[in-house]
Amino acid sequence: MREVTIAIDAMGGDHGPRVTVPAALELVHRTEATNVVLVGLQEVIQAELRQRRAATGTRLRIQHASEVVKMDDPPAHALRFKKDSSMRVMAELVKRGEADAGVSAGNTGALMAVSRFVLKTLPGIDRPAIATTLPSCTGRTYVLDLGANVDCTAEHLLQFGIMGAALVTAVEHKERPRVGLLNIGEEDIKGNEVVKRAAELLKDSGLNFQGNVEGDDIYNGTVDVVVCDGFVGNVALKASEGVARLIAEELRREFKRNLFTRAAGLIALPVIRAFKRKLDPRRYNGASLLGLNGVIIKSHGAADEFAFLQALLRAVEEVRGGLLRRIAEQVGAYQTIVAQPVRLIAGGGG
Amino acid sequence: MREVTIAIDAMGGDHGPRVTVPAALELVHRTEATNVVLVGLQEVIQAELRQRRAATGTRLRIQHASEVVKMDDPPAHALRFKKDSSMRVMAELVKRGEADAGVSAGNTGALMAVSRFVLKTLPGIDRPAIATTLPSCTGRTYVLDLGANVDCTAEHLLQFGIMGAALVTAVEHKERPRVGLLNIGEEDIKGNEVVKRAAELLKDSGLNFQGNVEGDDIYNGTVDVVVCDGFVGNVALKASEGVARLIAEELRREFKRNLFTRAAGLIALPVIRAFKRKLDPRRYNGASLLGLNGVIIKSHGAADEFAFLQALLRAVEEVRGGLLRRIAEQVGAYQTIVAQPVRLIAGGGG
Repeated sequence: MREVTIAIDAMGGDHGPRVTVPAALELVHRTEATNVVLVGLQEVIQAELRQRRAATGTRLRIQHASEVVKMDDPPAHALRFKKDSSMRVMAELVKRGEADAGVSAGNTGALMAVSRFVLKTLPGIDRPAIATTLPSCTGRTYVLDLGANVDCTAEHLLQFGIMGAALVTAVEHKERPRVGLLNIGEEDIKGNEVVKRAAELLKDSGLNFQGNVEGDDIYNGTVDVVVCDGFVGNVALKASEGVARLIAEELRREFKRNLFTRAAGLIALPVIRAFKRKLDPRRYNGASLLGLNGVIIKSHGAADEFAFLQALLRAVEEVRGGLLRRIAEQVGAYQTIVAQPVRLIAGGGG
Repeated sequence: MREVTIAIDAMGGDHGPRVTVPAALELVHRTEATNVVLVGLQEVIQAELRQRRAATGTRLRIQHASEVVKMDDPPAHALRFKKDSSMRVMAELVKRGEADAGVSAGNTGALMAVSRFVLKTLPGIDRPAIATTLPSCTGRTYVLDLGANVDCTAEHLLQFGIMGAALVTAVEHKERPRVGLLNIGEEDIKGNEVVKRAAELLKDSGLNFQGNVEGDDIYNGTVDVVVCDGFVGNVALKASEGVARLIAEELRREFKRNLFTRAAGLIALPVIRAFKRKLDPRRYNGASLLGLNGVIIKSHGAADEFAFLQALLRAVEEVRGGLLRRIAEQVGAYQTIVAQPVRLIAGGGG
């Protein structure tokens, strides 16, 4: 099995090393041929390791970085004034090939800005996008963008489709993932101009494009990839989280109503627990920053050890699945398709 | 109590008179001082009434209309070629003051086009919007627009805020409803230009504007009104429906897993039922077409009798709450505020 090294921004997130260090230990313990580099304040990380009776070794090392990007640091500030931040040094390890991927629970804006500055984008990709997986009736759906790009052109949406398809192929081993374009179903409009144009581009892209989908299709398993601009994607994701929390809260309240309902709740507990486990958002932790010349995963800032481990596992999967090569291939395949008519005409004319 | 007459597009929706007629009978039976006009094919409506041993009278009458707008009729087609449709005749009853409000489960695009053509918009309102209520931790949230307008300017969003606030005041009797602008929380962007500009307009509008909110705030009870463009609102609504269905499906599946879980399910059944009742989407049926010079409610096309009755009750509430007058007042109040600085300067100069 291919040896994979993950650089971890050990200081990122709401909990920092208290979460990132044990998750890193768990990754090394549980998986084969994976190494980690914990990036951050050496002493703090050392202390955390000592507390867990762990030490550095061939599979786990520390890379010192003297600064920390705070959760509320503006991206420009992180980029300009924190050149020795754990986030930045993590990205540089990926850039120099000392790590195959980087994982951070730090602030999204800063992580995107720093990663983009250090790693640059892949050829044929104008803007990186943030992709995540969400549970569906039939498995998982990949949605992008989730907030990196609020004003998108049709070409950007096409690139999101290409990258999303490459991601599904890399991670889920599906050769022709179904791609859908998020739109609305009102009879008189059928989406704005950018979305209409994006549909045309996707239709001619060589991707397995299934046409327009609606918000509920994210959870219906209709397609593998749902493409949308970052504003819409972010709202859809947050609204979904809001509904899920409301439902959980109401269910809890109903079971706590009186003695009888509490007893019913106790009896139903194993079922409710199994149900919760299945839709546990921690299982879906780890958003991919796609389109960069390097694999970067953003963990939720509030992630606990279990959730952060999922983000680390996602990074390993993306590396082993050859994500970057697959995006390059998809971009190449697309460029061949759009170039073809021109060549045919040229051939006919000669 | 003020006498209210509701014109009902009896032919609209997936089920037509089989649902609209019994719901109308129920409204008349259950509420005081409400009258209904069932608009559509006289014979079909008569037959439906006979089957239910009901007859027309002072509180329930039939208005014949010879055509029916189909669920897949393009709005322009409905408008141009079905001038005697039940939908159109319903809107005309409202226009002529023979009814105080119209309710239809027919296709949204056609209903909006026909209503706008017949009733026109209120002074100061450029575009009508679709508003609905969604459940929140603390009660209900009103969201608009939900699909009537995909490309909105900042001024349109401001008008949605004004109309949404008027709706909450009319229906919930809250004098200063809290208004929020739907945005995304990513640190580096904070929304596109239209949303940024809309926030400025809302801040100076005299409304009780609470600033930006995110997708989950729809369900958190943070504000009474959430303002967004129709594309975003539609996606948020559909995504929410998708999650809710997925959760319900998974819960059902877990309870059906084996004999033990089935037994637990039986015991928990009353609790699950109470929970379901509380979040039953049928209770929230009835979207308001706001900004028209008349009260028009759109019911879900698949509505059953209970759901359609909720849409009828909403129409009654909006009429009794003086919705149109309140929108006019809010628009007037806004125009006074924006005009004020000019007057002050003129006064200072004189």
